[in-house]
Amino acid sequence: MSLLVTGSIGIDTVETPLGSAADVLGGSCVYFSQAASFFSPVRLVGVVGDDCPTDFLKPLHDNLQIDMAGLEVRQGSKTFRWHGRYHEDINKRDTIDVQLNVLIEEGPKIPGQFRDSQYVFLANNPPGLQADFLEKLDSPKLVVADTMNLYIDNDREALLALLGRIDGLVLNDSEAQQLSGESNLVKAGLEIVQMVKSFVVIKKGEHGCMLFGDGKICVLPAYPAREVKDPTGAGDCFAGGMMGYLASADAVDFTSLSKSLGYATVVASFAIEDFSLNRLKEISSDDINARLEKFRTMSRF
Amino acid sequence: MSLLVTGSIGIDTVETPLGSAADVLGGSCVYFSQAASFFSPVRLVGVVGDDCPTDFLKPLHDNLQIDMAGLEVRQGSKTFRWHGRYHEDINKRDTIDVQLNVLIEEGPKIPGQFRDSQYVFLANNPPGLQADFLEKLDSPKLVVADTMNLYIDNDREALLALLGRIDGLVLNDSEAQQLSGESNLVKAGLEIVQMVKSFVVIKKGEHGCMLFGDGKICVLPAYPAREVKDPTGAGDCFAGGMMGYLASADAVDFTSLSKSLGYATVVASFAIEDFSLNRLKEISSDDINARLEKFRTMSRF
Repeated sequence: MSLLVTGSIGIDTVETPLGSAADVLGGSCVYFSQAASFFSPVRLVGVVGDDCPTDFLKPLHDNLQIDMAGLEVRQGSKTFRWHGRYHEDINKRDTIDVQLNVLIEEGPKIPGQFRDSQYVFLANNPPGLQADFLEKLDSPKLVVADTMNLYIDNDREALLALLGRIDGLVLNDSEAQQLSGESNLVKAGLEIVQMVKSFVVIKKGEHGCMLFGDGKICVLPAYPAREVKDPTGAGDCFAGGMMGYLASADAVDFTSLSKSLGYATVVASFAIEDFSLNRLKEISSDDINARLEKFRTMSRF
Repeated sequence: MSLLVTGSIGIDTVETPLGSAADVLGGSCVYFSQAASFFSPVRLVGVVGDDCPTDFLKPLHDNLQIDMAGLEVRQGSKTFRWHGRYHEDINKRDTIDVQLNVLIEEGPKIPGQFRDSQYVFLANNPPGLQADFLEKLDSPKLVVADTMNLYIDNDREALLALLGRIDGLVLNDSEAQQLSGESNLVKAGLEIVQMVKSFVVIKKGEHGCMLFGDGKICVLPAYPAREVKDPTGAGDCFAGGMMGYLASADAVDFTSLSKSLGYATVVASFAIEDFSLNRLKEISSDDINARLEKFRTMSRF
């Protein structure tokens, strides 16, 4: 089924204990699209400025599963830039520099032929903008959003209004605690699931994830990663794997959601093995399926 | 098969956000024994002072699965006491008061009829004392130990000597990082497994656990606990469930170890629902098996 993603496209500079990468392709809808493309065609909606080098988006254009009709190159605007530095403890990072640029202008347009999209992921954006995107769609079957601490703190009312209109929310552990006011993540999940129409996924990075919905809970460990070269985009790849699987299976029941988290975990585990899309560009669906089987064996008890 | 545990018996005072309990039964070999007793008979070796109230150990004496022949009531000594206070975030706690008392005297004796024990758990103690216990045993099939930050820091040489003589080590995430010098827990586990004869289990509290051994890794989430009344002793109950299952199955292969972690997780998840042994005294093997099935369903993907 048709899968659409709205989110950021960025020029990233990343420093980690295992190396660095300057001016590389990043952004939420970039990571999401590449991850989801292993499972399903993806419709990308995003915007860059006219400073974006011509061949910068080549990996996306080269990917036959990604429909780039929703890419806007805005004249007179500048592309989003982010520069981050990870600590020796790779779970911690500092933002060295961030230039939102085109991201704080008007959002990109959703092309007419994308309006019938059935599976929709609204990557992290101001909740008002996420709601605007939603307005432009006909009648999607499954709408899932991501959010961040900034909007939970400063734009709570708009965020709660958005949550009431979407099926699922994907957010990380500290965001879930912040949104719910609960330090216990199980309680947090049970609170947040009341705010959305159907389910919530709490991502815990190296500690796995939890799914709440349909009166049920599903808990997964993370795939045990030995070498994390660059965790940037792991959450977006996770969401891409999840939504890509659901769109390909055309299913939104709890069992399918649980299954999608296995794929999500595995795709993210590949992504963090190198900078930008480097690792995801090297692998195939077979690699994902093989690691999923290994992961299932590893978590059998 | 015969299962022996050496460890502390304590008079605990515990304050948590959900209540408090003063002068209640605690200590590593107490929690361990009660947890293991669901699976296997247990031989307890521990010491209290003559200040220990007569009926204080009644729950242990009443448990027909626990052989108390290794309990020493030492005249002129005082029982170990601990007073802790948990934060609103239940993963954090402060020690308000600790009186080691009899624990820093000579260790208790292992009765002659316990020397043939096949499965042995050396709960947290100075590594030299753990090694002394080991000396007193004939030829155990599986020896597993716990340790703590204090000995990793201050008694490293004795600890490393002990590790080389035991089959398995069970420790928590921060201790694993401290012992290995690795912040990545997968790397930490792979380092530590080289220090012991067979395997290491890293406990991550609400985030589950990881097993390393036999060139393999097993990862489990935690059972999603909604209400944590008192986490004291959770790690010892985890070890008790694990060793109890292994002793009952008389198996030490990787698959059995993985399976034991499911039982370990579930027994610990019951223990934290109330103070001291209160919750464990209420439940049966059927409750454990029922929750294990539920847990397996919850972690299917």
